[in-house]
Amino acid sequence: MSTIINDIEIIKAETSKIKDIDFDNLKFGSVFSDHMLECDFKDGKWQKPKIVPYHPITLDPSAKIFHYGQSVFEGMKAYKDTNNDVFLFRPTDNIKRLNISAKRMAIPELPENYFMDGLKALLKVDEAWIPTNEGSSLYIRPFIFASGNGFHASPANEYKFIICTAPSGSYFSGKVKVLIEETYSRSANGGVGFAKAGGNYAGQFYPTQLAIDKGYQQVIWTDDNTHEYIEEAGAMNIFVRINDTLITGPTSDRILDGITRKSIIAIAESKGIPVEVRKITVKEVVDAAKNGELKEMFGAGTAAVISPIAGFGYKNEDFDLPELKETYASLLKKQITDIQTNKSEDSFGWRYKL
Amino acid sequence: MSTIINDIEIIKAETSKIKDIDFDNLKFGSVFSDHMLECDFKDGKWQKPKIVPYHPITLDPSAKIFHYGQSVFEGMKAYKDTNNDVFLFRPTDNIKRLNISAKRMAIPELPENYFMDGLKALLKVDEAWIPTNEGSSLYIRPFIFASGNGFHASPANEYKFIICTAPSGSYFSGKVKVLIEETYSRSANGGVGFAKAGGNYAGQFYPTQLAIDKGYQQVIWTDDNTHEYIEEAGAMNIFVRINDTLITGPTSDRILDGITRKSIIAIAESKGIPVEVRKITVKEVVDAAKNGELKEMFGAGTAAVISPIAGFGYKNEDFDLPELKETYASLLKKQITDIQTNKSEDSFGWRYKL
Ligand SMILES: Cc1ncc(COP(=O)(O)O)c(C=O)c1O
Ligand SMILES: Cc1ncc(COP(=O)(O)O)c(C=O)c1O
Repeated sequence: MSTIINDIEIIKAETSKIKDIDFDNLKFGSVFSDHMLECDFKDGKWQKPKIVPYHPITLDPSAKIFHYGQSVFEGMKAYKDTNNDVFLFRPTDNIKRLNISAKRMAIPELPENYFMDGLKALLKVDEAWIPTNEGSSLYIRPFIFASGNGFHASPANEYKFIICTAPSGSYFSGKVKVLIEETYSRSANGGVGFAKAGGNYAGQFYPTQLAIDKGYQQVIWTDDNTHEYIEEAGAMNIFVRINDTLITGPTSDRILDGITRKSIIAIAESKGIPVEVRKITVKEVVDAAKNGELKEMFGAGTAAVISPIAGFGYKNEDFDLPELKETYASLLKKQITDIQTNKSEDSFGWRYKL
Repeated sequence: MSTIINDIEIIKAETSKIKDIDFDNLKFGSVFSDHMLECDFKDGKWQKPKIVPYHPITLDPSAKIFHYGQSVFEGMKAYKDTNNDVFLFRPTDNIKRLNISAKRMAIPELPENYFMDGLKALLKVDEAWIPTNEGSSLYIRPFIFASGNGFHASPANEYKFIICTAPSGSYFSGKVKVLIEETYSRSANGGVGFAKAGGNYAGQFYPTQLAIDKGYQQVIWTDDNTHEYIEEAGAMNIFVRINDTLITGPTSDRILDGITRKSIIAIAESKGIPVEVRKITVKEVVDAAKNGELKEMFGAGTAAVISPIAGFGYKNEDFDLPELKETYASLLKKQITDIQTNKSEDSFGWRYKL
C-alpha cells in the first residue's frame, strides 16, 4: 500500500509490531518502530526519501562502511503531550549538525527538506509509537553511511540516509561515578571530535570498559595533549558547578556542539544562574572538590538529558560530590523537559509542533 | 557442495566469475574473487570460520557498525611465482595487528588459527584468482565489524569477521605531490591512530580532498598538537632521505606499525644504508629541501609497497625533489617485492609458502 505525505512516498508495513511492545518497560533504543525513512545518494545526488517498512539492509562485503567507517549520525527525540500533540526539540539544529558532520567525513550534504519532510512523514505514520509515559519518548536516529563499494581508501560514490525510531525509556538510571581520563582520548586537534562520526564512539568503548572495570560508569575525556582540561563526559557535554557558578567548556574541533548543552546555558542564564563558558582544568575541579566548593557535575545530551555525577576518580583518588537537596541538575532538567514535552511555556521558541 | 580444507568447511560457488575478469587491466580492489571467509562472533565466542560464495551481507538498520564505527581491518597480499607457488608476506604480523586493533576498538580478539587456517583454505579455493602479471597480486582484506544491534553507545554483542580477496594491479601510478598538513590531523595522543580502525580512514578523506583541490594527491600527516612533526603519508608510513640517511618516525599511539615500514628498515640496514628511526620535523625537511640535502621522500604500505613523492607543498610554497637516477625507493621496492614474489633469497624468513 503506497500513499503520499508531505510529498513523500509511503509504503506501509503489512502488520504492526506495536502490540508486542511493553511501553511500561522500555529500554533505550532496543525496539524499533514499524517504519523507517530511506534515502539513497547515487548518480551524484540524493534521491527522494521514502518511508518503508523497517527492514534489513543488504550490502556488498566491500561496502565502504565496513572498511573506512564513513558514517555520521544524529540523535533527537519526539515527545507527546497530554493532548497527544507531537513535538520535536530544535530539530533544525540536528539537521544542520548532520550536514556539518557529513562534510567533515566527506559525505555529500543532505537537502534539509529531505530530512525534515521525511521525518514528519515518518512520525505521522508511526505516531502510535511515540510513548506517553513520563520520562519516555520516541528516540529518533538519523544516520548516513557509505554504501558504495571498493577497497580503495577514498570516499564512496553511494550513501544511504536512514531514519529509524525507537520508543525509549531513560538512558541512564541514577547518578554515575566517573573517571577523569589520564591516558586515552576521544579526539584530536584538527580531528573529527566535533562531528557525530561513527568511529568517535567505537574509540571510546575500550577506555570506558577499563573505567567500568575499576568501578566507574563513565569516562571524563580530557584534551589529548596534556590531559589537563576536562572536555566531555562519555558521549555528553560536561557541566561543573563550583559554588554557584555553572561552567562548561567551549566547543571546539574536539568537542561536540551539543543542543542540550546550549539549551542548558540559555535556561541557566535566564534563571539568573551565573554561567561561564571557558576551559575547565582538572586541577580546579580537584581543588574545588577538596575544599568543598565543587557542588555538582553532570553530563548533558539528548539521550539522558542531564546525567548527574555522584563522584569522580582521578590519579587513584576518589572524590565524592555532596548530596544537595536542590540541584542545578534537577532544576535544569525539569525546565528543559517541561519545554520539550509542552508542560511549560517555551519563551525560547525551541519546541517544534508537528 | 561442501568440502573441508584445514578443518574449515567450504561451500563452493555454483559458477565462477573469473572468466569475466580482465587480468591485464586490474584496478585496485574493485573486483572480488568467487569466495569469502565468514566467521561470526555470537553467544560470547567466535564460531568456526567457513568459506562461502562471495555474497551480500544483511544487517539490521540498528547494527552498531552503522552508528558507532566499530570496525577494524587488515591489508595483505598473496603472490604467485613462476612455478605457480603461492606466498604470503609476514602474515602472522597482520594477524597480531588485527587483534591489537580489535582490542583498542573493544572488539573480541580472534583466535589466530581461525584467521590463518581460514585464509589458507580460502586461497586454496580461489587460487586461480591470484594474478601472475608483473606488479599484480591478490589483495587480501580481512575485516571485523560490529553486526550486533541497538542504539546504546556500547560495544556490540555480535561481530562478523570476513576475508575477501581482490586481484589487483598497483595502487598508485607514478610519483605523487603531497601537502604537509597544517590544520587537520588523523590521530590523537591516546587515540586510535595506531589501530587499523575504520573511522581513521574516513577522517582523512576531507582533508585529502582539500589537498587534491589544491593540486596535490596526498596529505602528509603531522602531529595534532604542533603540526611540527611529520608522521604518516596518507595511509602509509613515511620515509625521508636526507643526504644518504633514510629516516622514518618511530611508531606510537598515533602512527601505525606498518609491516612494509619495518621490512624496509631491515632491508636498508642489511644493505648498509644508514637508517634513523626518530621524530622528523617539518622544519628539517623544508630546510633540507632548500639546501639540496633532501634526496627522496616516499610512503610505504602494503597496497602501494613504496610510493615515491615528487615534491611537497608547505605554507603555500612548493618544493620539488630531485630526479635521481638511483633511488632508495626503487632499490628497496625491488628488494622487498623480489622477496615477496620469490624472485630472490629471503634471508629474513618473511616469505610464507602456502
Ligand atoms: C560526543 C557528544 N557530546 C555531546 C553530545 C550531546 O549533544 P546533544 O545535546 O545535541 O545530544 C553528544 C550527543 O548526544 C555527543 O555524541
Ligand atoms: C595509516 C597507515 N599507515 C601505514 C600503513 C602501512 O602498513 P603496512 O605496511 O602494514 O601495510 C597502513 C596500511 O596499509 C596504514 O593504514
